[in-house]
Amino acid sequence: MRSFRRSPEKILLPRGFAFAALAADIKASGRPDLALAEAAGGANAAALFTTNRVVAAPVEVGREALVMSRGRVRALIVNSGNANCATGRAGIDGCKRVCRDAAKILGTPAEQIFPSSTGIIGVRFPAEKIRAKLPELAAKRSATKNGVETFAQAIMTTDTRPKIATARFQADEREVTLLGIAKGAGMIHPQMATMLVYLFTDVEASARELKNLLQESCAESLNSMSIDGDTSTNDTVLLLASGASGVSVRDATTRKKFAAVLTEVCRSLAEQIIGDGEGVQHVVRLRVAGAGSREEAMTVARTIAHSALVKTAWAGADPNWGRILAAVGRSGVTIDPARVQIFIGDQRVCRNGSACSFNGKRAHRALAQPVCDVGVELGRGRESVRFLTTDLTAEYVRINADYST
Amino acid sequence: MRSFRRSPEKILLPRGFAFAALAADIKASGRPDLALAEAAGGANAAALFTTNRVVAAPVEVGREALVMSRGRVRALIVNSGNANCATGRAGIDGCKRVCRDAAKILGTPAEQIFPSSTGIIGVRFPAEKIRAKLPELAAKRSATKNGVETFAQAIMTTDTRPKIATARFQADEREVTLLGIAKGAGMIHPQMATMLVYLFTDVEASARELKNLLQESCAESLNSMSIDGDTSTNDTVLLLASGASGVSVRDATTRKKFAAVLTEVCRSLAEQIIGDGEGVQHVVRLRVAGAGSREEAMTVARTIAHSALVKTAWAGADPNWGRILAAVGRSGVTIDPARVQIFIGDQRVCRNGSACSFNGKRAHRALAQPVCDVGVELGRGRESVRFLTTDLTAEYVRINADYST
Repeated sequence: MRSFRRSPEKILLPRGFAFAALAADIKASGRPDLALAEAAGGANAAALFTTNRVVAAPVEVGREALVMSRGRVRALIVNSGNANCATGRAGIDGCKRVCRDAAKILGTPAEQIFPSSTGIIGVRFPAEKIRAKLPELAAKRSATKNGVETFAQAIMTTDTRPKIATARFQADEREVTLLGIAKGAGMIHPQMATMLVYLFTDVEASARELKNLLQESCAESLNSMSIDGDTSTNDTVLLLASGASGVSVRDATTRKKFAAVLTEVCRSLAEQIIGDGEGVQHVVRLRVAGAGSREEAMTVARTIAHSALVKTAWAGADPNWGRILAAVGRSGVTIDPARVQIFIGDQRVCRNGSACSFNGKRAHRALAQPVCDVGVELGRGRESVRFLTTDLTAEYVRINADYST
Repeated sequence: MRSFRRSPEKILLPRGFAFAALAADIKASGRPDLALAEAAGGANAAALFTTNRVVAAPVEVGREALVMSRGRVRALIVNSGNANCATGRAGIDGCKRVCRDAAKILGTPAEQIFPSSTGIIGVRFPAEKIRAKLPELAAKRSATKNGVETFAQAIMTTDTRPKIATARFQADEREVTLLGIAKGAGMIHPQMATMLVYLFTDVEASARELKNLLQESCAESLNSMSIDGDTSTNDTVLLLASGASGVSVRDATTRKKFAAVLTEVCRSLAEQIIGDGEGVQHVVRLRVAGAGSREEAMTVARTIAHSALVKTAWAGADPNWGRILAAVGRSGVTIDPARVQIFIGDQRVCRNGSACSFNGKRAHRALAQPVCDVGVELGRGRESVRFLTTDLTAEYVRINADYST
């Protein structure tokens, strides 16, 4: 499908970071599968992880490292092609060995190395292959556009294109830059795909400030989207701040500006991820309004976004509002059906919970676009959310039904 | 697909009921779409309805009628081809007019007529077509196998075959008979399909006793299955007891025997419904054991059964246990991954949350059967549930993505 957001032509580099990537023979294809991002002067860090109780070894190790280092990160090591999940004690040990080796090469404590993995679950983690390549990887690092692009390519799995977003703003005649790199959360490969998002900035901020900023921004972007409702065991969002701009978020105006670009970059990455889901024909921008609380609106949005019946109707660009209404009804929120309005494109298709007259062809055309707006008004209050989701296509099923083991 | 349960050759008729059906021009196909079941001497009744907040007019009217009649039902009128849902005030009025007319013809209060509808949502309810056919329908009723079969056919929508189950047991040298008739809950038609289940028996039981018996039996059968996780606006299970056998459930042995046949009949209907889901290639008998509570086990079972990733793997007969493990992990139950075991067919495929060696071809062959057992052991306690579900095929998507409006 045509994406409604693409990676930018011009990549803005935040000061204080260098990037590198190479092929370490983890992917069968021989493509680049090992990436490094380094903050030579160190960076303050905040991270959000998958809510799945089953987590991959790097999530366990990375979470612990952030606690031990009190939110300091010198470098990030990511491999694709192997998720290092359901790999038991050996997986944890392998991950730690990689971190120790990287720390030695860069001259930093092991807990300042943050590990990530994405790929197949339940296959032995090839720690030795990675360790053998670390010196070459470290030697290649550079603060260049090319470094960023090879990094973005090396973390891809089923992604068809790299996902990058950048933004810059002025504060006190100085510049603050934010760079985001992501890989897809399509959940569409025979092996679970994972969402990995890395955000690099030269703003000055403490680990605690970064955590608050990251949570706020993700609530409205990366945590308000879903392709199929499955949650990966490896999902990670990491925000690193080198402080090299000399501009601090302790200044209220700067904080506000930074929060805005952070949300904007996360939103762009969310749209790039959704738009690149394999088997995805239509992206739906869902808006649930008139809720009694934000949580209520999210519950309704998630129920609609995870309904197989609603998503298959979208695949056929079928303005079948009855399925949306039924999803709202079973969401668990005590809605009054007689107060529910449903909109597709620019038309109301359900008035007060009942059929109303609308132009079916126009609604079909709206849903047939690469991106379509669908709105639900609950008539319970003033809270609303925006939620990014997709259709469910026969192609999605074909990709995921491949006999792979 | 081959079903693992079929309707029986021999239909056992409970005493005190007559059946009829005909074509009332509601279905565009011209097939039978209006059915009647009558208990000439009246019947005590209990019903379970959809938990969806959006309910069809007949669910509202039927629920109210049962309250007003204190659980007495003289007759049941079912139409297919129109769900009478999201039809506003006019839908309620039309449903009530049908009930009033039927009551007049049968010589009974209107609140003893129980209405049901299944079919398309949001289309005007054709009450006049139904009312015009009521005298002919009533005249046709008979206590015959043919009456039951035409009833079962007339309530079908996307079903490919009628769904009937019967059972009989002896008590005090007398016979108690139970007859169940159902239509599919495939949720697979462009218009939401609905599960309708009607159970007729000649046992003697009060409305309250019937309610308890029905709840117990459904918990282990009709409420422990799912095709796609969507809940219809019209789902109804109705149990009618004419008392004509002269055998009462107040006797503890009889109650136990009746509870057993009720569960057995409901389970047979559940399997017939699941096996007839359009686009369904594989039925999966899921067992979740080692849970701390029944509710916990159900939560895990539902999360697995509703995972698009797990269901698409099953469509390809892919023993991808990583997806099952990840679904268990995101279920909301605070499992310890290191205590989780997963079984496919007769093999363990995941030991203590990690990969273990198993015969992949044998696991693939097990999943390629029309019916396959999948087991998950949580290692938290002694509770377990059995849950019936299906794969998610490209055919399901194709059927549901048809542009219908």
